Amino acid sequence: MNNPLKYAVFGAGSWATAIVKMLCENLDEVGWYMRSVYTKEHLLREQHNPNYLSSVEFHLEQLKLSNDINEMAEWADVLIFVIPSAFMHSELEKLSVDISDKTIVSAVKGIVPETGLLVGEHFNEHYKVPFDSIAVIAGPCHAEEVALERLSYLTISCWDAKKAQHIADSLSSDYIKTKISDDVIGVEYGVMLKNIYAIAAGIAHGLGYGDNFQSILMSNAIREMKRYIKRVHKMKRNINNSAYLGDLLVTGYSTFSRNRMFGNMIGKGYTVKSAQMEMSMVAEGYYATKSAYLMNEKNEKKADTPIIDAVYEILYENKNPKKVFQRLTEKLD
Amino acid sequence: MNNPLKYAVFGAGSWATAIVKMLCENLDEVGWYMRSVYTKEHLLREQHNPNYLSSVEFHLEQLKLSNDINEMAEWADVLIFVIPSAFMHSELEKLSVDISDKTIVSAVKGIVPETGLLVGEHFNEHYKVPFDSIAVIAGPCHAEEVALERLSYLTISCWDAKKAQHIADSLSSDYIKTKISDDVIGVEYGVMLKNIYAIAAGIAHGLGYGDNFQSILMSNAIREMKRYIKRVHKMKRNINNSAYLGDLLVTGYSTFSRNRMFGNMIGKGYTVKSAQMEMSMVAEGYYATKSAYLMNEKNEKKADTPIIDAVYEILYENKNPKKVFQRLTEKLD
Repeated sequence: MNNPLKYAVFGAGSWATAIVKMLCENLDEVGWYMRSVYTKEHLLREQHNPNYLSSVEFHLEQLKLSNDINEMAEWADVLIFVIPSAFMHSELEKLSVDISDKTIVSAVKGIVPETGLLVGEHFNEHYKVPFDSIAVIAGPCHAEEVALERLSYLTISCWDAKKAQHIADSLSSDYIKTKISDDVIGVEYGVMLKNIYAIAAGIAHGLGYGDNFQSILMSNAIREMKRYIKRVHKMKRNINNSAYLGDLLVTGYSTFSRNRMFGNMIGKGYTVKSAQMEMSMVAEGYYATKSAYLMNEKNEKKADTPIIDAVYEILYENKNPKKVFQRLTEKLD
Repeated sequence: MNNPLKYAVFGAGSWATAIVKMLCENLDEVGWYMRSVYTKEHLLREQHNPNYLSSVEFHLEQLKLSNDINEMAEWADVLIFVIPSAFMHSELEKLSVDISDKTIVSAVKGIVPETGLLVGEHFNEHYKVPFDSIAVIAGPCHAEEVALERLSYLTISCWDAKKAQHIADSLSSDYIKTKISDDVIGVEYGVMLKNIYAIAAGIAHGLGYGDNFQSILMSNAIREMKRYIKRVHKMKRNINNSAYLGDLLVTGYSTFSRNRMFGNMIGKGYTVKSAQMEMSMVAEGYYATKSAYLMNEKNEKKADTPIIDAVYEILYENKNPKKVFQRLTEKLD
């Protein structure tokens, strides 16, 4: 691929590793920033990420590895961020180089807790990146299946269709099909909200609800998502496109989803704290729940969001999951 | 429940048994017709269906059991048919009593192969039942979860809202929530089409496609279903309601779905015949595929249905599943 733009991925989790793999199918050189010196050393020695998708072998001559976020941000033209939203703020605080003329791609599935902003908004507000240089990657896509080269589809959203297409082309391959969209805001909200619904699916499962209810929950969730996104950004969109519905389904139905697993523990009676300790991480949807709920509360015309409200009550108001879900079942149809 | 109307269920499979159980929560007497003398004898002796949902115990004083379809059709006011569509025609040929003034409820998930008609149309055309006396029951609802009394939701569709509500009330209980709809035709098509998509999901699984692709398939399927139903019966409907999307999801994601299992075998390389022999039954979606495809072909303005077309080519034109699905993946997004 004739590609004069330099791409770099920031992050070393499973989704970051999958994206590096996709880029390596097309580009001669891929930048890869990671915080951990150990991970970088291991990659140099063993040609794979020690912690995630370790079956994926990289060719070192294709990788430009770095532990220095500024070096990497300076080098690349297209910066793909794949850092858990909870660490975005502290990671970005290390940035001293100007990135306002770069293309920023968010593959972060959530919002920045410290600022309550969507990742795109965060880059616009705090790093002066114009909105037409901000793109979002949405699934449905489990990183694990990318490792196995199982056919997957991505949607790249950017107001600038040319940029969206360039990113899409850089990620496409035999096993990755891409499409572009101009609904950056809608897709970013969708990516955030799906994790809340995955928590809800997990809670339901933990409480003993079955597959029949799960499909009711999902069909109500997509309608709720549509109402929510319409309130924040009204435009013509088909909520059943893969970036919204497909991504919701792969997250809500997957037993591997960390958000669903977190919800499952809550449904089984763990407290929020103990579930988080048990998982030794914080599920993205945990922050998303608070932000989505509070944003909606601020709206003059609040969207009707019984599922988000229920998850919020359980996670942040310490209410009894069983009782909250009993009330929720009355509101679904 | 103060219920002067007499209800009878026709059929003795798992879904029929589940519906009898639901009615027994509300009615003093429930009619139950089954072809098999043995099943009836077993029920009288052991209080449960020997073949399906055998954990469900019935109270014999609530049941009016019969092997005589005419006796039962004469006795009841509301006739709920839960017979596999492949046997509907031969079963109904035994009918000699006039049923034109009865309320007919279809819980058959398909079309009558001999006439190519939806079950509702079949009763209207061949038994002179007016359309406002025809109702349809849609899920999402696995019978197995009804046996376990896990919360499930049903949609009852009838042009006559009073009749729909009466049926809904007769089925509702602690664990069954119901809603009514006037989209009889749309819901009946949805119930039929979902089985084709479940076969497609099974084929994809059998061919080795993963969860990412499955969610792409489902998000494309619901859009295809919307286009299809809109062509045959245009009215304002939200395709993401549980009767359409919810029912699609519970069927498409369930590994217990017979249609999905059938597709899975096809994807793994079985011929249609050997898969059917192996399952010792014919999946509803097998007939639905042919009918849906041919009906669409007859339309002046054909709906764009790449998934149905692909399943048709595999099942009826003997085409190679792998190649057909490779082409299909290009058409999905």
